[in-house]
Amino acid sequence: MPNSTNQQILLKNRPVGEPKESDFALVETPIPELGEGEVLSRTIYLSLDPYMRGRMSDRASYASPVELGSVMVGGTVSQVVKSNHPQFSAGDFVLGYDGWQAFGVSKGETLRKLDPNQAPISYALGITGMPGMTAYFALLDIGQPQAGETVVVSAASGAVGAVAGQIAKLKGCLSVGVAGSDEKCDYVVKELGFDACINRKTQDLNTALKAACPKGIDVYFDNTAGAILEAVLQQINLGARIPLVGLISQYNAENPPPGPNLMPLLVKRALIKGFLVGDYQQRQGEFINDVSQWLQEGKLKYKEDIVENLENAPNAFIGLLQGKNFGKLIVKVSEDPTR
Amino acid sequence: MPNSTNQQILLKNRPVGEPKESDFALVETPIPELGEGEVLSRTIYLSLDPYMRGRMSDRASYASPVELGSVMVGGTVSQVVKSNHPQFSAGDFVLGYDGWQAFGVSKGETLRKLDPNQAPISYALGITGMPGMTAYFALLDIGQPQAGETVVVSAASGAVGAVAGQIAKLKGCLSVGVAGSDEKCDYVVKELGFDACINRKTQDLNTALKAACPKGIDVYFDNTAGAILEAVLQQINLGARIPLVGLISQYNAENPPPGPNLMPLLVKRALIKGFLVGDYQQRQGEFINDVSQWLQEGKLKYKEDIVENLENAPNAFIGLLQGKNFGKLIVKVSEDPTR
Repeated sequence: MPNSTNQQILLKNRPVGEPKESDFALVETPIPELGEGEVLSRTIYLSLDPYMRGRMSDRASYASPVELGSVMVGGTVSQVVKSNHPQFSAGDFVLGYDGWQAFGVSKGETLRKLDPNQAPISYALGITGMPGMTAYFALLDIGQPQAGETVVVSAASGAVGAVAGQIAKLKGCLSVGVAGSDEKCDYVVKELGFDACINRKTQDLNTALKAACPKGIDVYFDNTAGAILEAVLQQINLGARIPLVGLISQYNAENPPPGPNLMPLLVKRALIKGFLVGDYQQRQGEFINDVSQWLQEGKLKYKEDIVENLENAPNAFIGLLQGKNFGKLIVKVSEDPTR
Repeated sequence: MPNSTNQQILLKNRPVGEPKESDFALVETPIPELGEGEVLSRTIYLSLDPYMRGRMSDRASYASPVELGSVMVGGTVSQVVKSNHPQFSAGDFVLGYDGWQAFGVSKGETLRKLDPNQAPISYALGITGMPGMTAYFALLDIGQPQAGETVVVSAASGAVGAVAGQIAKLKGCLSVGVAGSDEKCDYVVKELGFDACINRKTQDLNTALKAACPKGIDVYFDNTAGAILEAVLQQINLGARIPLVGLISQYNAENPPPGPNLMPLLVKRALIKGFLVGDYQQRQGEFINDVSQWLQEGKLKYKEDIVENLENAPNAFIGLLQGKNFGKLIVKVSEDPTR
């Protein structure tokens, strides 16, 4: 039986601009009794993702904002402590959405059992989870990369971008990343196998894109919007496809900044299409099959950036929006008995 | 036999901002001898269209710029004077691309014969021509309007917008126009049968769009970009489609202005796709069949704004970019023997 006290991180204030540690509060609360069909789990890993910034604001978005004083939401990999649901038993590893807390109570229907022999359980928060699935469907469904085409990926060392660029390579494309440091760019090219990577902080985007993409850009996998999108639009080819997956560059903006001029879209008969992974829930099987196989065959590489202790989640999340993480950012909330 | 002198309007300077009359030059030149397969035609109607502003600049666009000192390009309806091509005889009415001049010499392959009994020959520059075809394919192929959905059309009284909004009605949609005067709005609603029309100069776009589109916006047929696109994005529904057909709002801009923030595209998983009618040349038959039938059944209305004399073309074109025309703008260059 667990300690009957839970640790939770609550959203205390709606951040203005960059979130601050003081926008969050760490509290201890009692663990509630389990209702029918409910499962109590101990959080092992908490996923930190850029989309969470949107949930901290009360601007209209695709999901309702986190209420002030409530636990911050987030994907979790946990071990079941106690179960009132027939499909789960104590000791099971599960993927859930318990948020920023040490223990979570959730309906069994919202959990997915994980097999620790198939892949490290934390992967379910990254390459075999929501970020991997985002990369897979946004690239293949909207981007439709064809062998020989050029695919550019922003935030290329991040959880989503790293997978998108590698899949582009698997599909026979020239794969060009954009990342925020030489170290990240080295990783993207040498470890992940992208053909090139542009350091957006030290290189001129237009010049560097032109050099890295001599045949123009057919697909731009956009995690960031902002200046990178603007530069990419100058180099797009006829019929280019731009899955708009994230707007990291502006998540902290107090007022939404203007976007790029859209003339190149008309001239090149290109498209920009917004993407949300939740729309693909029913096609999860396709993704899991392909990505599991590619992982087993060593065709996909994956890097995690693991931060210890729940109390460090706010600071790690603040760094995430500044590009400080290197690899998929997760918080290790408690011991992982499988490693 | 024609007079052996031609009147031509040349592009003298690349306009900076709004074109001025001094950017053009009216000259008299000899009519060249006909080569093999060539046709000499007398221009009856010259089409003036916003896209021509792009051809006056040397910025990258989907077509190469008009060379300084050359005849301005443009669609024409003409009568054949002399033909070295087996498919055309003197007296035939033809649709061509002879540009801003009183007589044109062109390859027979570039001409399409017009039947003056089917529709007024000038219609081939508008509702049964390039603008009508733009409206038809951009709306139906990219917009994919479904009965019961809401379609917003900018430049709604213009040659393209008027057709797009009427086709949206024919497809069972709520059709909302945006135009630049009360007179145009009256025409759009009372004559063309749109459900509503917003005067972009006197009404607050956000408020007026919200009122006119109580169920949000599913399709935005964008002729203008700029402020209207920005306001529309605030009201788009899940999965909205935005054919980007023109950017009239910025054709005179010396530097391309920023576009709208693209966050709503992501949140609503919507798409913006650039459209160019030339890509649909092979599907012209579908368009001609549908639109001819709708015209015959009285389901489509069409208005022309006819300016007399070639020498007035520059001034009329300048007004077109300012929204001064009312209906499809054409220049009557010589007598129309069919009217």
